[in-house]
Amino acid sequence: MNTRYWNTRLRGMEAYTPGYQPPITPATIKLNTNENPWPPSPLALKAISDAVGSELRLYPPSEWSELRSEISTAYGIPPGMIFCGNGSDEILSLIFRCFTDPGDTLILPYPTYSLYPVLASAAGVTVDHVETKEDFSVDLEAMAARKGRMVILANPNAPTGILAPVSAIMDFADRFDGIVVIDEAYIDFAPEGSSCLSALANRENVIILRTLSKSFSLCGIRCGYAFADSSLVQGLTAMKDSYNLDLLAQRGAAAAISDLGWMQGNARRIIAAREKFVERLAGLGFTVLPSAANFVFARHEQVASRRIFEGLAEHDIHVRHFGGRRVADWLRISIGTDDEMERVSGVLAGLLGSP
Amino acid sequence: MNTRYWNTRLRGMEAYTPGYQPPITPATIKLNTNENPWPPSPLALKAISDAVGSELRLYPPSEWSELRSEISTAYGIPPGMIFCGNGSDEILSLIFRCFTDPGDTLILPYPTYSLYPVLASAAGVTVDHVETKEDFSVDLEAMAARKGRMVILANPNAPTGILAPVSAIMDFADRFDGIVVIDEAYIDFAPEGSSCLSALANRENVIILRTLSKSFSLCGIRCGYAFADSSLVQGLTAMKDSYNLDLLAQRGAAAAISDLGWMQGNARRIIAAREKFVERLAGLGFTVLPSAANFVFARHEQVASRRIFEGLAEHDIHVRHFGGRRVADWLRISIGTDDEMERVSGVLAGLLGSP
Repeated sequence: MNTRYWNTRLRGMEAYTPGYQPPITPATIKLNTNENPWPPSPLALKAISDAVGSELRLYPPSEWSELRSEISTAYGIPPGMIFCGNGSDEILSLIFRCFTDPGDTLILPYPTYSLYPVLASAAGVTVDHVETKEDFSVDLEAMAARKGRMVILANPNAPTGILAPVSAIMDFADRFDGIVVIDEAYIDFAPEGSSCLSALANRENVIILRTLSKSFSLCGIRCGYAFADSSLVQGLTAMKDSYNLDLLAQRGAAAAISDLGWMQGNARRIIAAREKFVERLAGLGFTVLPSAANFVFARHEQVASRRIFEGLAEHDIHVRHFGGRRVADWLRISIGTDDEMERVSGVLAGLLGSP
Repeated sequence: MNTRYWNTRLRGMEAYTPGYQPPITPATIKLNTNENPWPPSPLALKAISDAVGSELRLYPPSEWSELRSEISTAYGIPPGMIFCGNGSDEILSLIFRCFTDPGDTLILPYPTYSLYPVLASAAGVTVDHVETKEDFSVDLEAMAARKGRMVILANPNAPTGILAPVSAIMDFADRFDGIVVIDEAYIDFAPEGSSCLSALANRENVIILRTLSKSFSLCGIRCGYAFADSSLVQGLTAMKDSYNLDLLAQRGAAAAISDLGWMQGNARRIIAAREKFVERLAGLGFTVLPSAANFVFARHEQVASRRIFEGLAEHDIHVRHFGGRRVADWLRISIGTDDEMERVSGVLAGLLGSP
């Protein structure tokens, strides 16, 4: 490839591999990118539809006033501590561009969401991986002993689904001399009281990320939001594109967040389906990590994960298999509808020769 | 402000000031951010409406296959030479992050679009301004004598509206040892044959930017696109967020670009209104630069621009006044509907005590 005009970081960058997007037929069961099987709030769809008109010829609000105020009301956090982005992907990218310099160190647990090291390399930042414990829980004690400019903790963690307690994370944040990003993309699938949001006040080094893509069933509109001390929100705001969030996303997100009950109903159904599926997996000879997310991370005791992955794909069932140390033996399976999980259980039973 | 966690570049950054967004009443005439007064294509609105549904629970195409193919067909450029972003703002930001290193030099004409120096400072890049000529035309000869990593040429230029000929720009690009970005945000308001797109083939240092925000009347969906050698498109693709463009923007943009006739009809009406307005301004004692854009840059020979700006604002007519060397005597006035420009002409006549 001709890289004559590429800069230093681009030449050294590893690319992020998003989950495979299979062709979708009515028979396809897509459990590889943690999408929500249930539809978004009808209020969100109506708000988007209502905004489709000649108003689109105008620039959208550059600081998302209506959306921000809806988030503020829903979560009880002042608007000045709220930042909105084109997916939490954009917010993560901005966090690197605002709060790290090239040559800095980012501390990450291993394993975790594979996008974080990609963003680090794009920012010229070195990653110091801290191994999770034998049971894959994040080793906050070991992380507290490291020095770095920033830490990112997905909580629940991906791809394991394991949740760390609020108190342990906050103790860590208070000891860590740098920014602590807590990515709560999956928190709505965890037990009540699991979010670090209640502990954010007066912690000026903590950023909590949320997204509309998982529990709110709105990947398609690309909207994430963050809670942080106003000094961090001001930094992100100075660095962002003026109009980083389109009008339709702003309207849809505001309406979805005004209708938390709809999202929570979907989350409860997914949690129930997850618990039932975990039992089925255990009955089929799988070890399953305790998940507080809308996916499970599971390993079969006799059959190689790659073989199960391929066997499922032959039935048009798509799950995620990651390469790499400690995780290559496992499969990450998103939780779909009850019917989908029944069908997956049946196909797995057939593949594994069990009843 | 508490900047303890900010990085070096954020601390040194100047902020971009977007145009003031006045409260809109039916009487407001908003001519300060170059928005299009005419509505977007009905096909675009229908395509967006049709996409509002449970499909939004899924991630959008990460490489915008359908949109890319529509752009390819409309402009006769292969898909591998096309890149799409969340507004051309995002593409510009990615260009800096891909093709400049901190400490590099960006060469810009002065004056030009005030966002470019802001993006440069965010990337740690120094700006070398090259004065435009006495008549505000870009001095490509003087620019060719400078050394730098990148040049950005808005063509037509902002805030002047002045167009440079394709042959002069391409001669310059062939002599310049670095990336040449040609921002054609306003090109659809220029005479036919003004775009550099026809000269792109085999020029591996040229990037041409387009946007849906101006001629297509779709600021609200945030979509820009770029044409460049595939090696540059590959670099931008490696650096971008996986899902940088939401589904609704992809669908709306594809439909708008499939309906070029609608956009061109609106552009023709704006050009006609511009020519008429330029005559009126001349009659009122203004000097007006020759504009190939959907705005004019004008200076009154007797009355200070600031006074005219304020006088118009009192009539709920909003235009743009920039501070700074050479431009502070001028006003940039976007072209609205024929009726709006008639009303503006009348108010100006009143303010200036002319018939």
